[in-house]
Amino acid sequence: MRILGIDPGLQVTGFGVVDADGPRLSYVASGTIKTKEAAQGDLPGRLKLIFDGVREVVATYQPTEASVEIVFVNVNPQSTLLLGQARGAAIAGLMSQVQPPAVAEYTALQMKKAVVGHGHAAKAQIRHMVMRLLNLPREPHNDAADALGLAICHAHAGQAMAQMARATELTRRTHAQIKGGRVY
Amino acid sequence: MRILGIDPGLQVTGFGVVDADGPRLSYVASGTIKTKEAAQGDLPGRLKLIFDGVREVVATYQPTEASVEIVFVNVNPQSTLLLGQARGAAIAGLMSQVQPPAVAEYTALQMKKAVVGHGHAAKAQIRHMVMRLLNLPREPHNDAADALGLAICHAHAGQAMAQMARATELTRRTHAQIKGGRVY
Repeated sequence: MRILGIDPGLQVTGFGVVDADGPRLSYVASGTIKTKEAAQGDLPGRLKLIFDGVREVVATYQPTEASVEIVFVNVNPQSTLLLGQARGAAIAGLMSQVQPPAVAEYTALQMKKAVVGHGHAAKAQIRHMVMRLLNLPREPHNDAADALGLAICHAHAGQAMAQMARATELTRRTHAQIKGGRVY
Repeated sequence: MRILGIDPGLQVTGFGVVDADGPRLSYVASGTIKTKEAAQGDLPGRLKLIFDGVREVVATYQPTEASVEIVFVNVNPQSTLLLGQARGAAIAGLMSQVQPPAVAEYTALQMKKAVVGHGHAAKAQIRHMVMRLLNLPREPHNDAADALGLAICHAHAGQAMAQMARATELTRRTHAQIKGGRVY
């Protein structure tokens, strides 16, 4: 399972790619899509850069799953609206592929719980734990760290679901034995 | 000049295509992109339908310009965020073309002023004026009417700018004459 984490933003969109083989995680790539190129106030131009950037990352790394941060309502409603548009362009970039990755969504709180163990983690703790969990030689930058954290969060959720599926399977088998009445 | 008006929404995105030849406007097409197909709560699926729908409209009608409504902050911040994402996906659909149309943005107030003459126009007045301005046999539906209104608004703005350019040109020529001092 190759997971692409996306932390959308109008100025900077972080991305991080992680391979998950059961509980084993390995770092593939990470970086940022910046929209400084677009002229100040050229919103369509910025959205195009985000859309194109996400498409390029997907084309390059071919993730099977994507994990996108659920953005939150900001103190400033105008910022909320801009962030929403950035997120819409990023998801359009994911979904515009011939074989789009399955898109999962997590809040920053869920990501922090998965990576650090609690929801009130500071940026530095996220960077540190992402470095440790992925065996990186040094801490990633903030934007990339959050995106890698989202990929890790999805890997953990996938693992939890696989475990749950196995547990259900076990219950079913046990149940079948009982239902059959001392068959064995 | 062929103008595509887009009125973005998460459930329904209206579109309207108008040809503008100087002050003459003619109706080309209009309709809506609905996202009912996507499962309830499947936001990436809805954004994909909006993105694909806008792409298809652009591919079909080949507009040279697009006129997109500037969405406003809603009473409900969560709705604002969702509307922002719909708008982001729609603009990504416009910008993802090899030769994207030039994207202009107008508020609902600017559109109403251009179509009806004042900013407090009711839906019924917009429908009626769009029908009259485009010589339609009957009133368009609300979503399509707003999108056609945005296309008309951009046509008027283009005309105003062309007039301004002509006026500036005239001033420049007059000025040159004066500056040259009784040359003629």
